[in-house]
This record gives sequence, C-alpha cells and structure tokens, in this order.
Amino acid sequence: MDEFELIRRYFDRPVTSPGATQGVVKGIGDDGAVLMPTAGFELVQVIDSLVEGVHFLADADPSDIGYRVVAVNLSDIAAMGARPRWMTLALTLSGQDPHWVEQFAAGLHTAADEFDVVLVGGDTTSGAAVVATVAITGEVEQGKALLRSGAQIGDAIFVSGSVGDAAAGLQLLSHKAQDDFLTARFCRPTARIHLGRELSGRASAVIDISDGLVGDLKKLLVASEVGAEIDVDRLPLSDALRQRFSADEQRNFALTGGDDYELCFTADPDRVKDIAGVTAIGVVTGGQDLVCMQDGNIVDYDDSGYRHFQ
Amino acid sequence: MDEFELIRRYFDRPVTSPGATQGVVKGIGDDGAVLMPTAGFELVQVIDSLVEGVHFLADADPSDIGYRVVAVNLSDIAAMGARPRWMTLALTLSGQDPHWVEQFAAGLHTAADEFDVVLVGGDTTSGAAVVATVAITGEVEQGKALLRSGAQIGDAIFVSGSVGDAAAGLQLLSHKAQDDFLTARFCRPTARIHLGRELSGRASAVIDISDGLVGDLKKLLVASEVGAEIDVDRLPLSDALRQRFSADEQRNFALTGGDDYELCFTADPDRVKDIAGVTAIGVVTGGQDLVCMQDGNIVDYDDSGYRHFQ
Repeated sequence: MDEFELIRRYFDRPVTSPGATQGVVKGIGDDGAVLMPTAGFELVQVIDSLVEGVHFLADADPSDIGYRVVAVNLSDIAAMGARPRWMTLALTLSGQDPHWVEQFAAGLHTAADEFDVVLVGGDTTSGAAVVATVAITGEVEQGKALLRSGAQIGDAIFVSGSVGDAAAGLQLLSHKAQDDFLTARFCRPTARIHLGRELSGRASAVIDISDGLVGDLKKLLVASEVGAEIDVDRLPLSDALRQRFSADEQRNFALTGGDDYELCFTADPDRVKDIAGVTAIGVVTGGQDLVCMQDGNIVDYDDSGYRHFQ
Repeated sequence: MDEFELIRRYFDRPVTSPGATQGVVKGIGDDGAVLMPTAGFELVQVIDSLVEGVHFLADADPSDIGYRVVAVNLSDIAAMGARPRWMTLALTLSGQDPHWVEQFAAGLHTAADEFDVVLVGGDTTSGAAVVATVAITGEVEQGKALLRSGAQIGDAIFVSGSVGDAAAGLQLLSHKAQDDFLTARFCRPTARIHLGRELSGRASAVIDISDGLVGDLKKLLVASEVGAEIDVDRLPLSDALRQRFSADEQRNFALTGGDDYELCFTADPDRVKDIAGVTAIGVVTGGQDLVCMQDGNIVDYDDSGYRHFQ
C-alpha cells in the first residue's frame, strides 16, 4: 500500500462533528492545509514525538500509541490554557502491516474526537523504527495564554488528578503485570483541556507533568524566578497506587515518575477555590529551590528525570 | 547534554530580523508557542520528515539535512501561495555528538532566515535513527490559497527553474561523484516562496515537485479532474544536467526524478506572462491521463515514483 492509499484508507475520513470542521478551509489532500483562525485569538503551537523503544515498546498496542501521541500534545495545549483545533501527523513506519496502521489511526482519532480536534494533513515515511510526531494548533483569547513564568511568592501550588500512576503503570507493564487503572494512566493519559481553559486568566503559572512532578515544577520555578516548598503528605495519590506499592515507591513515583500529564499550577487560592479536581500541595517561596517536606523533615529525591525504557 | 541544554545552546537563539519576530508572543521555552496571526489571513499548515537511510545517508552533512528539512516544508508553503511564518521541530537523534547538532541547527536556521521564518518550539528525542520533522505555519490572504484542484481545460502547464537536477545530483552522490551544481540542487533545494506569492490569485492549480514531475503533475490532474499533454523537448534542463548525462538519462531524471522542489502549475498564459523563471511545457486537456510527447511520438515513462535510497 503506498502513502496515498494509506492516508486515504485510514487517516482521511469524514468529520461529522461541526466543532471539528469549523475553520477547515482545505484539509488532507493538498500541499498544505488551509485553516481560518478565530478573530481575537492567538495561536498556540505544539509538537511532540513518541519513539519506538523509548516511549513505547515494539509490541505495544498501536491504538494506545495513536491515542497517546495526540494526548501528550493536547496536554501541552492544556498547559497553555488553549482550545485545541487542528493537528498534523508525521508517521515513520518500519514495516508495520495495514492492521497496525488501522489500529494506530483509530486511537489517534479517538483522542482527537474527545476535544473536536481534526487531522488536516501529514507525512508518512519509512525508517528503522516507528516515530510518531503530532503537531497541534490551538487557540486562546488574546493575552490569556498560561505561561510557566508568572508564579508569585505566596501563591499556592496545585496539581490536578493524581500523580505517580503512569510511572507505576509503566513499571507494571515492563514486568508483564497488569492493573487496569494504572496501566491505562500510562497508555491513555487524560489531557486536562477543560481545566486549562478554567485556569486561563486565573492561574499565575502552569506546566504539564511529563517528566515528573519535581522536574517539571522546577522548570516552572526557574521560569518564574521563585522557590517552593511542597508537602509530600498532601500529594494526591490514587487508591490503586496506594494498594499496589509501598509508601516509598508511592512517593518516588509521585515525585519523579513521568508521563502523568496532569497540570501543575500556581495561583492565589481564592481565585481557584471553585475549581474541582485539583489539590493544593505547597506554596511558592522566595527561596532558590524546591524543598519537599514530609513529617517536618526534608525529603531527598532523585531528580534525574524519568528515562522511559532506556 | 540533556534536552534542555541542547535546545538552549543550538536552537534557541536571539532573532534579529524584525520580520521573523513579528507575531511571536512566546517562542521556545514554554509548553507551547504563542503566536499572533494576521487579521484577514488564513493559515497554511504543513509537516514533512526526513529520515536517515531513506532521505539522507548517515554520513550526510548535518547542515545540509537541517537546511533541507526546512526547504522541503517551505516548498509546500510555496505551493499553497502562502508566506511562511513560524516553525516547530521534532528531532529524533541516535547518538549524534554536539558538533552534529550544531551543524544541523546552523543549516536549519540558514534556510529559515532566507524567508524570515522563526523556530518557536520543538521536541528532541532519542531513537534508532535520525528522523527530522518540521512543521511550518504560513499565512495567505483569505480565499487566495493555491490548490491542486483548479486546472481548466486549455490552461498552459508551467514548471519553475529546471527539472531533473536533484535526482541527477543524488545519483552522483550515491556514486561518490561530485558536481557542485547538481548535488547542491539535491542537498539544498530552493523553495519557490516568491513565485508562490506571485501566483496567488493568478494560477489555477499548483503543486510542488517532490516525487517527480510526472507523478506530481498527475496528482494535480486527478484533483482537477482533467488530463494533460506535455512536450518533453520543452522541459527546462540545466546546462549541468545536459553536460553530465545522456539524452535518455536527462529525460528520465526530468520526468520522474524526485526532490526538485520546483513548482508545477497551470494558468491562463496571459495571466502569468510577466512572471520570470518559468517555462510552459504543455497544456491541460479534457483527456483522462497525462500524455508525454517527444518529436511527435508518445513517450513511455516509469511513473512508479522516486524511491530515494531504498
């Protein structure tokens, strides 16, 4: 099957949702897509790749890979407070059969459909291993994009959902063990688009947690030129994580495990008190670094970042 | 060197051209780039990858790879009649050293600077082989995008520059031979951005030649639901191609060699007579297919498309 046939069969499909087709002047099938932006909005542009052997194993479910490459990009859109609109796909294959491509495309469309994102173009190539790259264009009201750089001393620090699940799920997968909740948290992360939209104009700084809470919060602190203190006992942990792992493992997954794709943000607590599904875990300080406290003691952590399968 | 350091050192650099910084609200360094589109314009979004072992060999000059991955995307922007504005990069590396990355980035910026395109974000990963993917966002006046689908019976067919050079240059490279002009035509293709802008509102259909003149013109004909007849003797061939290759080789490179990144377009000849650097090669017909004539005879050609290094 050549590239043209591959695209026609699996990627170029009728879009039924009015929200998804709005603004698409010309989608798949020309040298580029033509899109009508919304007056008064700025664009948010993101790009992220998933690589075989690094972000997923060769025998991973292709529909999960398709879902996840969209979700990780949507998570960046969420962290900017934007609404996702259009996406393009660059897919390098290494001899996958049509069934694999069909499943990949199904997962990709599932993730996109959740937020009315439409695939408007792409490029398929062959190579030594699978690399899936998605670029998404979002829109945000002019001047309302959420950056990493606005955290103020005294702001509270929040995280959405629960942390550590994805890294725990990945460890289970690596050992051929199973826990439906935890492995789904790794394979099919939830992009916090709605939360990002709620935070627009209210949070002082936002980042998504892809490399681990500690590592990503530190990036936010550097960008904002502040320090922080967080309380490990206040970290939101899922029941599944608590049941399957020791207290030390829970803490390590929550602090430094990657791939959660939750949002970590700073805000005046009064401005976000009506927002559900988020937990206050600490405070922004005038210090130089991030301090993690537990039972009144400073916790050491390995902040070398998450290394996936390598 | 970690991803953060890699980006800071080689990709995130001060942009000095006012044309390039215009519209960049937030560039590299956050979860996404924030961009201000121009009122009254539509967006054109493209994405294209170059893969080690397919589009370039492992020992290729990294600055050429960086230049070329931008140029092939710019060529798609040109074929839509748009002005390129912003780009993102997804770069998968397989153990390249910092010098390689520095050279790659230098080539990337050289190609971008020629048209005031600014790198606003990206993602670097490791994998089994180098994959470089660039996505570019351009802008075109509302309703003025050039599509493949507007060719009318009786329109003339034109190509820009000369055709066949890149495939000839690649063959020389594959045999460790050298011809500065021909190999540069492969390694550093010229995106016809200015021509695309001139054709906006004047050409009836446009495509860029990436897979070969015959293959790409056929895509235009299918999209426009017309046929065509071209005259092989009118194909614009460079002096270098004529001097280095036989008449049969010249014709084969020109008809089916890929990677020229010239524009092929259809137009009422009166509407484009003041445009320089283009050659009329045939006419749009009411037929079902593309017919290539030479000395009054129909020429057979292999239209299986260009297969790069594979």
